[in-house]
Amino acid sequence: MRERELIARLLAPLATTPVARGLADDAAVLVPPLGRDLVLTHDILAAGIHYLADDPPGDVAWKLLAVNLSDLAAMGARPLGVLLGLGLGPAEDEAWLTAFTTGLKRGMDRWGVALYGGDTVTGLKQAVLGLTAIGQVDSGAALGRMGARAGDELWVSGTIGDAGLGLAIAQGRAAPDKFLLGRFRRPEPRLALGRALVGLATAAMDVSDGLLIDAERLAAASGLAVMVDLTLMPVSPAAVARTTRSDDDLAALAASGDDYELLFTAPPHCRAAVLALGATAIGVVADGSGLTVLGGGGQAVVPTRLGYEHG
Amino acid sequence: MRERELIARLLAPLATTPVARGLADDAAVLVPPLGRDLVLTHDILAAGIHYLADDPPGDVAWKLLAVNLSDLAAMGARPLGVLLGLGLGPAEDEAWLTAFTTGLKRGMDRWGVALYGGDTVTGLKQAVLGLTAIGQVDSGAALGRMGARAGDELWVSGTIGDAGLGLAIAQGRAAPDKFLLGRFRRPEPRLALGRALVGLATAAMDVSDGLLIDAERLAAASGLAVMVDLTLMPVSPAAVARTTRSDDDLAALAASGDDYELLFTAPPHCRAAVLALGATAIGVVADGSGLTVLGGGGQAVVPTRLGYEHG
Repeated sequence: MRERELIARLLAPLATTPVARGLADDAAVLVPPLGRDLVLTHDILAAGIHYLADDPPGDVAWKLLAVNLSDLAAMGARPLGVLLGLGLGPAEDEAWLTAFTTGLKRGMDRWGVALYGGDTVTGLKQAVLGLTAIGQVDSGAALGRMGARAGDELWVSGTIGDAGLGLAIAQGRAAPDKFLLGRFRRPEPRLALGRALVGLATAAMDVSDGLLIDAERLAAASGLAVMVDLTLMPVSPAAVARTTRSDDDLAALAASGDDYELLFTAPPHCRAAVLALGATAIGVVADGSGLTVLGGGGQAVVPTRLGYEHG
Repeated sequence: MRERELIARLLAPLATTPVARGLADDAAVLVPPLGRDLVLTHDILAAGIHYLADDPPGDVAWKLLAVNLSDLAAMGARPLGVLLGLGLGPAEDEAWLTAFTTGLKRGMDRWGVALYGGDTVTGLKQAVLGLTAIGQVDSGAALGRMGARAGDELWVSGTIGDAGLGLAIAQGRAAPDKFLLGRFRRPEPRLALGRALVGLATAAMDVSDGLLIDAERLAAASGLAVMVDLTLMPVSPAAVARTTRSDDDLAALAASGDDYELLFTAPPHCRAAVLALGATAIGVVADGSGLTVLGGGGQAVVPTRLGYEHG
């Protein structure tokens, strides 16, 4: 499909906001909301690296949106719109593009996000999909990784390790399971939780590289040490059915990444409020540095890996 | 170079604005300027497609910035900051990255642009560089492609065709010339002109695919026809030295693209004001549709091509 046809037939119908100017101008024009800060992020998904070449295109679009909106969620922001950088290779034919844009529209509708603009390039050796997401947050209210205080509890949303098991299923290394595969292919950015954490959380980030490595990073951003108790870590019934509660198995789930849950700290007096949001306390931050992992019986565990370290 | 080291050593030192939060958070936080609209654009440059693999990395960075800022210029906007999507292949080693970020800093300093954030991915089959540029313009004042009126004159900034000749030099198909090569590798976004055109131009865009095809698109956006007189087209002395003033040679320059000059319409009573900005009148828009090209002696010319049509 020619770039011009792709834009006219598949992308322009998604660009219904006046901000996008029908994708007919050189740029989008946004009237910024009064009394709000804008939150801006850009994440790339590349075929064969961040997703599998045979992943359903609609799920790829969903994930591209979700990983960016997850960054907004971690800052406590509400999403407004996105710019799409569509770099296409030989495999992205008309059927792929149709399914991709259908999935994109589904995600946009679900999360209330508009398409502002972007760029399309064909003839690449592999698909490289970039997305810039723009959100808003009350002035001065954005969450960040810095701000945790010694004695704050460490919390996480949802369940951890599902996406790692889902990846194994997508790669044909494990028996099918719809829930786990869905957790890998269609992560859910924790937008409502992120907004609810403004004023409660002292520091926040999303879990993309693995709970353990991200917990260490979150604490380090505030110059603190962190303790994670694996026996407190929330694990889904589907994940429980595939693993044991052994320290090794729990540590592997905690290092598997792609969870897109929120990891945050909050002072102990906020415990009831945070519990009401459905999060789980899994540890504590303290003076010092580094990560301590506890397993069954309160014994220290030394995991073989903490998560995905970017090469 | 590992992603983390690249970010810490080469990118974080460029992210000095508080908006970027030291690249330590999941997203950037921008306090939007009061009384301004934000202008947002995203363009991709891919190795082997938009630039040559052996182009100097500093020039690639410059061009990545320049093509995006040129979109802001076309909207009359002043640039504020950028998010960088750095997709790297095997060829982008430490030396390349050092030269690239040095060139990026030079361009950022030149145009007063801050680095807000972005994403870095290694292991691609080829480099795919995305940039999101954010600018500001007085509320409601952004220029656009729509708005030309029959009888408006068609204007262009700078000179046309240099970059096409520069590409031939970069490819080893033509004898070296520093000026022409520089026009291909280091285009200059017409930011000051774009801002000066707010209130003067009725429609505007930047010339990226070729003057002729872009003139046709500009007129079509307002539902008008356009006439371009090749004999009025501004051509640099360096380009004159390599071509004749024949209709065919002028038409080839006018279709060669990558000029990143501003193409705009303005009513005849603004002529003196626009002339004072250094632009050149090259035609007129009128009721109807389509493009008419005039050559020497006022004869109609039928160019073999109008510019680059995205495949």
